[in-house]
Order: sequence, then C-alpha cells, then structure tokens
Amino acid sequence: MRILYHQPLSAACRKVRLVLAEKRLPFELRVEKTWERRPEYLAMNPAGSVPTLTEDNGLIIPHSGAICEYLDEAYPDTCLIGQTLGDRVEIRSMTAWFEERFAEDVTRNLVDEKVMKPAAGLGSPDPARLRAGYGALRTHLAYINWLAETRKWLAGATLSLADFAAAAHLSALDFIGDIDWNTAPAAKDWYARMKSRPAFRGLLSDRVSGFVPPPHYTDLDF
Amino acid sequence: MRILYHQPLSAACRKVRLVLAEKRLPFELRVEKTWERRPEYLAMNPAGSVPTLTEDNGLIIPHSGAICEYLDEAYPDTCLIGQTLGDRVEIRSMTAWFEERFAEDVTRNLVDEKVMKPAAGLGSPDPARLRAGYGALRTHLAYINWLAETRKWLAGATLSLADFAAAAHLSALDFIGDIDWNTAPAAKDWYARMKSRPAFRGLLSDRVSGFVPPPHYTDLDF
Repeated sequence: MRILYHQPLSAACRKVRLVLAEKRLPFELRVEKTWERRPEYLAMNPAGSVPTLTEDNGLIIPHSGAICEYLDEAYPDTCLIGQTLGDRVEIRSMTAWFEERFAEDVTRNLVDEKVMKPAAGLGSPDPARLRAGYGALRTHLAYINWLAETRKWLAGATLSLADFAAAAHLSALDFIGDIDWNTAPAAKDWYARMKSRPAFRGLLSDRVSGFVPPPHYTDLDF
Repeated sequence: MRILYHQPLSAACRKVRLVLAEKRLPFELRVEKTWERRPEYLAMNPAGSVPTLTEDNGLIIPHSGAICEYLDEAYPDTCLIGQTLGDRVEIRSMTAWFEERFAEDVTRNLVDEKVMKPAAGLGSPDPARLRAGYGALRTHLAYINWLAETRKWLAGATLSLADFAAAAHLSALDFIGDIDWNTAPAAKDWYARMKSRPAFRGLLSDRVSGFVPPPHYTDLDF
C-alpha cells in the first residue's frame, strides 16, 4: 500500500493528500513525529521533514514538491501542473509563492507557533511571531482575494496544483480559527468550491489533540 | 535578450546561472536590490525574491525551482532533471534537500548574515546564527562527502540539477571563506570537477563589495 508519512496540520502534507485524493490514488496515512528523529525515517528522508511518500514498487519520495512533480508524471490522467510551458510556469511559480512567501510569513508564524512548537515540546508561541503572522495574513489574504476575483482558479482558467497548495495552507489556518473570511469574499467563494471537492473530505475529518476547529471548518456553505 | 534578475551571492540565483550556462543559453545579469521593493519588480515577482528570469517572448518566471523546471522542459537537449521516474525523484529530492535543509541550516545563517543582512542595512551578523551555521555546515559537509564517495555525481551516475544546486550553495560559502575543504576530500574532488566546467566561469569572476574571496576560490586545482 502507498504510504504517506505526515503531520495533520502540515500544509506541505495537506497539499500532497489533496493531490493524491484528486487523482483518486489510494494511500495510507502515518503520523511521523519528526522531532523524535527516528533513524528509519531519516534514512528515507535525510532532511527529516514531512511528508515522505513510499510507493509499492519501493520508490521513496521525500519532499512535497518532488512528490507532486512525481505524481503528475506518474499519474498524468488528472493533470495538475498544466499543459503548455506558459501554464506550467504560472502554476509552479504560484505554488512556490505559497510554499515560500506565504509559508514563511504566515503559516510558520501561526500554525508552527501554535501547534507544531507545543507538540514538539519547544514551549509556547512567541507573541512577536504571532503578530507578524497576523499582519502578513491580512496582506496575503487580500492578494489571494484579488487572484480569486480576476481568475477562475488561482493560477488561471483550470484547477491546478497552485489551488491545492493554497487550500492546504488556508485549511490549516482555518482549523485553528485564524481566518476571517468576511474580509475576503472572493477568496471565500473560491475556498468554498475547493472544500466541496471530494478530495477535501479527508482534511475536514482531521482531529488534532488540544484543538477544536471552529464550526465553519467542516461546513461546506460557511 | 534573456534577463536574469539576481544577487551575486544568492545560491538560488547561482543555481540558475549554472543551469543557463550548462545549457549554453545566453543571458544578461541584472542585480536586483530586493530590499528596495521596486514596484516594477514586485509586479513580475510578487514574492519579491530573486531570481526572476524573463524570456524574449515575454514569459516571466519567478522562483529558482520554477525556472529550472521550465529550462529543462523548454531546452531539453542538455537534460538535468533525469530521464526515468526514479532518477527524476532522486534529483528533485536531493535538490530540495539543498534548497530547504542546507539553505535553512547553513546558507541563511552564514551567507545571509554576513553578506545579505549588511547589504540591506539590517545590521551586523548575529553570533548565535553564525555558530548554528558553522555547526550545521560540518554535519552537512560530511553528508555531501559521503554522497561524493559513493556516487559519481551527487544524485547518481549522471550530472544533474542536484550538483548545480549543491555547487551554488558551496560556491557562495567558499567565496566568503567558510569551507574547510581538507575535512571533506571526496566533496573537494567533486567540487573541483564542478569548478572546472565552462558553466562555472561566470561565478568565479564575481566580485562583491567588501569581500575578497580566498585565493583558492578561483583556483581550479585548489
């Protein structure tokens, strides 16, 4: 069986779970407590990060970017990285914006501080990082709202990896109640469309010890 | 003319410069002071980071990962991301290890603290970050040495994007005199082979205000 080593609120892992589900590829989830630095896991993924995907044929794939590129090449029926060179550039650049800019400015400051840090026994959230995270979230959510206003999907006319990267980050932030959707109506409409996809079901049933998601987290008509 | 917006000691930019030169694609370099947040640049690259590549046909490509994927698709004659699914997984995972693990543990703590931070007027290096960077460099250089001992090139039997990603980071660290090559003889041998490639010439002639690279930086038989 295909196995994904993950953590429930890791945006990189959520992106891969969404892509696997969208491509209708069955997989088993295993939680990896990366802070324990398990030697068997480090042998598969020298960075010691999640996710890592293992295939039945023995292929071991660390890193969410490498996994998503692999999945689009190995299972091309539901293409998520575009058909033309121009589309592929736009989808990969937009995905990279979420994985680097949005992740560094927002997700690390909010999700990592509130959830990952206490889980790894590294203490309580740093108020300066929370402030920085909320400030950046306002700016970046306005940008996402503008994208959603001007395009059908975030990277253009078709659903793509960029939408799943965005939804992965926003769903983790939504789980901890950090998104005020009323400030970004077009982004909210786009996210409602994402949340209604069958691929999203697995994420909506996640439960994380110590956190109760807000009622709208699982509501498809929030 | 193809233009690469870059900074001389940015590892992400050096990787793209090496890939362009290895593929014999002519390009013009333009230094982008990202900390000035120039509106015309932010319109091309909303993350505000370097590099960004612009093509004569109008295509604008932000982010080193998206640029390298694009270049391998648009100019496939010199293939750097592998031919088989397995090779492509190994090359992309190894490249990601350098861009995330190595960059975060070493390059940001040393190159960013010593060069980028003062250049952007953000003060002098933080001693705690320098200590963390030197510690991680020892461990990671030992890992690279092990890779170089057991494989012809870092991701396997053929020269690939992973070698250029690695050489980009190590060349920036070597420029500021932070690498003790005597501790890693196999890595040194691999790096000497990389440095001898014609694609490397541009990097070896870089000059950065306030820094004099050690004599071995440009020496092909160091």
